[in-house]
Amino acid sequence: MSTLTVPETIPSVPEDCEQLRKAFADRDPLLFWKKCDVDLKMILVVLWTLDPAERDALLANEATKRWTSSNQVLVEIACTRSSHDLLLVRQAYHARYKKSLEEDVAYHTTGDFCKLLVPLVSSYRYEGDEVNMTLAKSEAKILHEKISEKAFNHEDIIRILATRSKAQINATLNHYKNQFGNDINKDLKTDPKDEFLAILRATVKCLNRPEKYFEKVLRLAINKHGTDEGALTRVVATRAEVDMKFIKDEYHRRSSVPLDRAIVKDTNGDYEDMLLALIGHGDA
Amino acid sequence: MSTLTVPETIPSVPEDCEQLRKAFADRDPLLFWKKCDVDLKMILVVLWTLDPAERDALLANEATKRWTSSNQVLVEIACTRSSHDLLLVRQAYHARYKKSLEEDVAYHTTGDFCKLLVPLVSSYRYEGDEVNMTLAKSEAKILHEKISEKAFNHEDIIRILATRSKAQINATLNHYKNQFGNDINKDLKTDPKDEFLAILRATVKCLNRPEKYFEKVLRLAINKHGTDEGALTRVVATRAEVDMKFIKDEYHRRSSVPLDRAIVKDTNGDYEDMLLALIGHGDA
Repeated sequence: MSTLTVPETIPSVPEDCEQLRKAFADRDPLLFWKKCDVDLKMILVVLWTLDPAERDALLANEATKRWTSSNQVLVEIACTRSSHDLLLVRQAYHARYKKSLEEDVAYHTTGDFCKLLVPLVSSYRYEGDEVNMTLAKSEAKILHEKISEKAFNHEDIIRILATRSKAQINATLNHYKNQFGNDINKDLKTDPKDEFLAILRATVKCLNRPEKYFEKVLRLAINKHGTDEGALTRVVATRAEVDMKFIKDEYHRRSSVPLDRAIVKDTNGDYEDMLLALIGHGDA
Repeated sequence: MSTLTVPETIPSVPEDCEQLRKAFADRDPLLFWKKCDVDLKMILVVLWTLDPAERDALLANEATKRWTSSNQVLVEIACTRSSHDLLLVRQAYHARYKKSLEEDVAYHTTGDFCKLLVPLVSSYRYEGDEVNMTLAKSEAKILHEKISEKAFNHEDIIRILATRSKAQINATLNHYKNQFGNDINKDLKTDPKDEFLAILRATVKCLNRPEKYFEKVLRLAINKHGTDEGALTRVVATRAEVDMKFIKDEYHRRSSVPLDRAIVKDTNGDYEDMLLALIGHGDA
């Protein structure tokens, strides 16, 4: 599924990149970037070069330190990585920050966000395909009841989303749609400005259709006035070797424009070249 | 720290033990025990023979299936094992039960117990010795405030106990005692019949002084009219090769009787012999 089918197309990495990477391993990288005035391309190269668990630990740490209720990076890391990969992130977090990921999330987030995010980042979901259809029906009913009552922060909603396997959640959400008529995310959009609802929808999407989640992050980042390079860089660096092919397909379908063309329109220079190389320009 | 210094003293294991162990791997062991009418010694042998992570997964599953608010086995497993060992338990749980430990705990426990137990069993605590003294002071103050207000289920109490490293919690509790005069567990005993307070005290003890926690479980098991063989078997089987030496020392100090003599008085036959062998009879 790698989009990096032709390594030769990657722009040559400056000689100081290895030095940068080493410095990066010893310090707070974002501080380092700021101090060094490195460019967007360099950030992308460094993020992409890092071991995935290290990279996620770093992104998660940034998200906790600068946490806002609109920040969905923790959900993204907790719900789109495999159970084993999330565990590696937690181990990398120990090694780098001398504390646990859930410790920082619990300390820096508040209220309903905390109630949802702590179990999400602490989860070690079962990854088998087995589905309990009776349970799927009963939990679809619970979800529908609580959502109808607008009890969006109800412990059962959080329990189901934070602990059930992805296969089980998929079955539950299919039953929800069959039985009650709507995608659950439609019912979770009663107030488009409610940020807790937004993070619940992101959770559902990350668990169930990660490529749709990432497509939307890219679309919003590119369509934003001035482009959200942070989101664009993060998604390209973290998904390049995972599911970028699917994300590109989804993007093309949803925006009627191929992702590479949208990137060419919105970015430039070395940064543009590197983004195109990482998304596998031309092999869509 | 092993108490099994002289393997020859272990009573001969019946020939069918290996068969039993094999059968055990395939089925619900407690059901199996009941069906087979195996004796206490056999249960002890099988529990002790199992890989520690397998054994804990089994004990944790039993605790969730038959969960009552007085059951402290989940706290014991979540808080006295190392972070890595708890993780191995969660992996063994996946393999055996085709679901996650936290999924079963969240489903089978309720209210405040659920709020405490889910993060405890999901925790992957940092295990370094680093302590932040400023944080220890501020969190000791938070704990004291919430306990003074009898807000025992407050999210900050749960957050601190469920996410901080054991070294950090130790520093916080030392500061609590220095600053406010009492051991925290004394302040958590306003109502000796309150089972949530009991489980909070067990959490503190398991995190901070596990040998004291296990000593008390053994003492209550032995002193109980008729002896609580379940607890006696569990503690001996799970701690024999870990910290039984410290637990025995603590028991002798607290009960003025050596543990082996108390066991001889309360049990008999093969079960007694096996218990004595596992606690390292004579080397106290």
